[in-house]
Amino acid sequence: MSYTAPIKDMLFAMKELAGLEDTATLPGFEDANFDTAQAVLEESAKLCGEVLAPLNVDGDRNPSSWKDGNVSATPGFASAFRQFAAGGWQGVQHPVEYEGQGLPKVVAAACIEMLNASNLSFALCPMLTDGAIEALLTGGSEAQKQTYVPKLISGEWTGTMNLTEPQAGSDLAMVRTRAEPQGDGSFKLFGTKIFITWGEHDMAKNIVHLVLARTPNAPEGVKGISLFLVPKFLVNEDGSLGERNDVHCVSIEHKLGIKASPTAVLQFGDHGGALGQLIGEENRGLEYMFIMMNAARFAVGMQGVGISDRAYQKAVAYAKDRVQSRPVDGSAKQSVAIIQHPDVRRMLATMRSLTEASRALGYVAASHCDLAHRHPDDATRAKHQAIYEYLVPIVKGWSTELSIDVASLGVQVHGGMGLIEETGAAQYYRDARILPIYEGTTAIQANDLIGRKTLRDGGKVAKELLAGIAETVEALGAQQGAAFASMKTQLLQGQRALGAVVDFVVANAKGDPNAVFAGSVPYLKLAGIVLGGWQMARAQLAAAARRDEDPAFHDAKIATARFYAEHVLPQAAALEVAIVSAKGDEGVLALSEDQF
Amino acid sequence: MSYTAPIKDMLFAMKELAGLEDTATLPGFEDANFDTAQAVLEESAKLCGEVLAPLNVDGDRNPSSWKDGNVSATPGFASAFRQFAAGGWQGVQHPVEYEGQGLPKVVAAACIEMLNASNLSFALCPMLTDGAIEALLTGGSEAQKQTYVPKLISGEWTGTMNLTEPQAGSDLAMVRTRAEPQGDGSFKLFGTKIFITWGEHDMAKNIVHLVLARTPNAPEGVKGISLFLVPKFLVNEDGSLGERNDVHCVSIEHKLGIKASPTAVLQFGDHGGALGQLIGEENRGLEYMFIMMNAARFAVGMQGVGISDRAYQKAVAYAKDRVQSRPVDGSAKQSVAIIQHPDVRRMLATMRSLTEASRALGYVAASHCDLAHRHPDDATRAKHQAIYEYLVPIVKGWSTELSIDVASLGVQVHGGMGLIEETGAAQYYRDARILPIYEGTTAIQANDLIGRKTLRDGGKVAKELLAGIAETVEALGAQQGAAFASMKTQLLQGQRALGAVVDFVVANAKGDPNAVFAGSVPYLKLAGIVLGGWQMARAQLAAAARRDEDPAFHDAKIATARFYAEHVLPQAAALEVAIVSAKGDEGVLALSEDQF
Repeated sequence: MSYTAPIKDMLFAMKELAGLEDTATLPGFEDANFDTAQAVLEESAKLCGEVLAPLNVDGDRNPSSWKDGNVSATPGFASAFRQFAAGGWQGVQHPVEYEGQGLPKVVAAACIEMLNASNLSFALCPMLTDGAIEALLTGGSEAQKQTYVPKLISGEWTGTMNLTEPQAGSDLAMVRTRAEPQGDGSFKLFGTKIFITWGEHDMAKNIVHLVLARTPNAPEGVKGISLFLVPKFLVNEDGSLGERNDVHCVSIEHKLGIKASPTAVLQFGDHGGALGQLIGEENRGLEYMFIMMNAARFAVGMQGVGISDRAYQKAVAYAKDRVQSRPVDGSAKQSVAIIQHPDVRRMLATMRSLTEASRALGYVAASHCDLAHRHPDDATRAKHQAIYEYLVPIVKGWSTELSIDVASLGVQVHGGMGLIEETGAAQYYRDARILPIYEGTTAIQANDLIGRKTLRDGGKVAKELLAGIAETVEALGAQQGAAFASMKTQLLQGQRALGAVVDFVVANAKGDPNAVFAGSVPYLKLAGIVLGGWQMARAQLAAAARRDEDPAFHDAKIATARFYAEHVLPQAAALEVAIVSAKGDEGVLALSEDQF
Repeated sequence: MSYTAPIKDMLFAMKELAGLEDTATLPGFEDANFDTAQAVLEESAKLCGEVLAPLNVDGDRNPSSWKDGNVSATPGFASAFRQFAAGGWQGVQHPVEYEGQGLPKVVAAACIEMLNASNLSFALCPMLTDGAIEALLTGGSEAQKQTYVPKLISGEWTGTMNLTEPQAGSDLAMVRTRAEPQGDGSFKLFGTKIFITWGEHDMAKNIVHLVLARTPNAPEGVKGISLFLVPKFLVNEDGSLGERNDVHCVSIEHKLGIKASPTAVLQFGDHGGALGQLIGEENRGLEYMFIMMNAARFAVGMQGVGISDRAYQKAVAYAKDRVQSRPVDGSAKQSVAIIQHPDVRRMLATMRSLTEASRALGYVAASHCDLAHRHPDDATRAKHQAIYEYLVPIVKGWSTELSIDVASLGVQVHGGMGLIEETGAAQYYRDARILPIYEGTTAIQANDLIGRKTLRDGGKVAKELLAGIAETVEALGAQQGAAFASMKTQLLQGQRALGAVVDFVVANAKGDPNAVFAGSVPYLKLAGIVLGGWQMARAQLAAAARRDEDPAFHDAKIATARFYAEHVLPQAAALEVAIVSAKGDEGVLALSEDQF
């Protein structure tokens, strides 16, 4: 059940694909060079491997539990959280002025991947706290920032996001929680929020709930939603804790996976009203929430990468250990480790190549975010911001969808043992399943990819990326050997398929919206496959250039990329067919509701 | 949580695709006409819908439990099993001379599908009993048949298959259980068997274990394995029960899914030896077991269909009920049921089309089995037997692999509610996961497809099927409209891809076995997709011919087939690329063991 952070692979992706050394030239990131990144990753790997990973199974077998409104985390979690906090890990990506580490997002991305690979349930608590910090930094007053952000960064307190209500899941327009002004600038909140991750627990002294609610006379729909800060314990002016606020956990859910992370039903205002403060301006709550959600969506994408890698590591270990059957090529008379069997090798190569591709795409997205925030030139910042925003739904949707396939293959590699819960492979299969659902389902990500990220600029960003892929295809042509030839052929076909689909989306969204949105998730997956394949091709080229420094490592990169080219990239053409044949609504929508 | 057997869809597949009316002309099946089939299905649907389906959730929440060597089934299961037995359902496909119903396998297939859709854990007990009956009918003496088969068919006793040992999973050559001859024709067995489904329980008076073991001086490997009958209670000459035998359940497993079905560790001979009888001849155990396993593999394929359909029904019900968000085409100002959203429609259509295609392929395979057993002409029987044997690994491997995707989509349709265990969608996702593992993993099925089913006849059966597909492609050309045009284009491409892969397999298996076997599972999936697509095309043509009899029903068939053509069949080309690029070992095997 151990986890070893793949530091070498991570650093390769950061340096060769995500341009870590360029990031370190940005203002404020001068210290974040390769050596710093390596040192940070090594420290993070220790905590994750030694403290958090061993608790992962405990959390599954002995989930957090609810009693009389209180939630106890799995034994060992609170102590691990204190170590996490003491190491400064909550602050990795947050500003130095609020006592964060101020490191680039590309370094934080690797830390987030490790945290989630080692213990997904645990990692959700810091992830939600990151979201609360982002929202406060974006919309909060200076007083709110000073009071709350350093305590969240230190891990003394944790944060939550309160969006969902029973009738308002993907559809936030239906939020009903009320916020009544008290005349002194404060509000009292009344309502029920569900699916609140780490919404109640005993790992920190206070919990800072960020809550979407409506003020009286607010406009209907999403334009009438405001964001409120509602602490579990009220905070005195000196920062000390005051009275218990009127927000209570009435139950936690019994879930398929991530069992150690309590998923709370929170009741606001059943005993007179939960005291809260407005964050930013009234009716702009969704805007702030979206900033925080973009950060969270990126992080969920990295959860996909993390769980994929964990499942992969476990499957490799089992396949090297389990001896069963003779080789099909007759090369041995005795039974061999199952990793010798071609189909097991194929499964492991699938897991490995998908994990590496999704990691690379995530880190590259993170570096665009760094450039968008720190580059001195306005136009360059804007350009990278647009690319980052295009990539976020893909990183979130594609990395998480594929993590289910990877975790499922991990079970398959284990054969019958994979079904036995004590083996541990099944936990990843259960844990991964939520990833394409929370923080916006894959369909929500895909709608975002079409609406805000493709149509709004008429496909401009998508086409810039397609031009970048074309350059890589050309560079592949200058290489010798079958691995590069395969990649060149398949990446070019993928690039053409993605280009055709972007054109289809832009041309038909207005006239035939049902057809275009019926292809939304296939478009997202196609974009993930091709953009991930692009990173694999770039990895192949970088590995070729540096081969002699470490032949075994770089040959593995070249071979893994080739596998991806031959087994994953060909799916691009199949997705293109599915998407473009929807024209005229007949494909997906020919069946009426009654015919289902 | 209800289940309604899709009788109309089943009868359509049986009549229009699997040639039910031709089956009813075979000797012994004269009574098995359409009306009989319909009546049988309707009765089966009642039992499954009213008795078994409601117990499915109970079984998951309150699994069978072990205490002091005894296993108690979930409350309600024993009574349901008595109803199942009293209705004669265990005997549907077994010979009349042993008190079975003697119905065609194509009718039994529909009953098996229903049984598994309603309650997979429950259905495993009859499934294993079917296997024991098959093995006894194949290898047993007349006395053994007379003593055991009627009691198994009546449901008074149940049966098990004991193959796996800790060191012998896929690799039965490593079986170590010993059988020592006692001089009187009987044997004493000593050893440990694991993963024995319904290996101990309280639903029947006796359990008939069929056990693979080695006699002294038996040859090494699979050629030294014999099959033994070891009852839980010894059976007196008059058929009454005697002493408790020395086979004991020492524990049951804690599993990801199918929790109500006890998975036993059985200890044979710890108290002096478990008394057993040889079935058939010594050292031919694997041969008998394979006959029983072929029947079981087909049945597991139908489990895949069943769980897919159950997940589909649940997702449709939720999608029609759950109201969330306005339509993307602006056709309504208020929120609508999520089935109105194109991506939800796409997910449901994916679930539906995969379920229908795998059902059709299963029923068609069953009808080949019927022809292979009952046709008066030797050559015709042999021809259909060869086709049936080619199809069994595909029905088993493909239907079960896709059932995971279908169950996973079912969770996705439910959004956050899908993760909550009380919703029920997660159970199908957990239950389905074992299907591609037990009774031979997908890799084992794929090895069988390549070795015994493709190479042995040089691809002859595969090419007969390809010729049949070509005929259907031609017939599609005579139809008007986009649905048929799409199917024609995609089925033709799929047919070419499968043809190219069969040629690749035949040409390279000897010279480059690792490359060919690295593509074994992709070949199996490709064959499933194309042969399933063929059945969807045949359904489309049949629906067109009968459209006026019931336009809504037949239009739905035509539209579902079109969806399959555009969303599923294009994957065939992607799989072809993955398979044929393995040539020269470099694709899958370029990464050495150390590089993982």
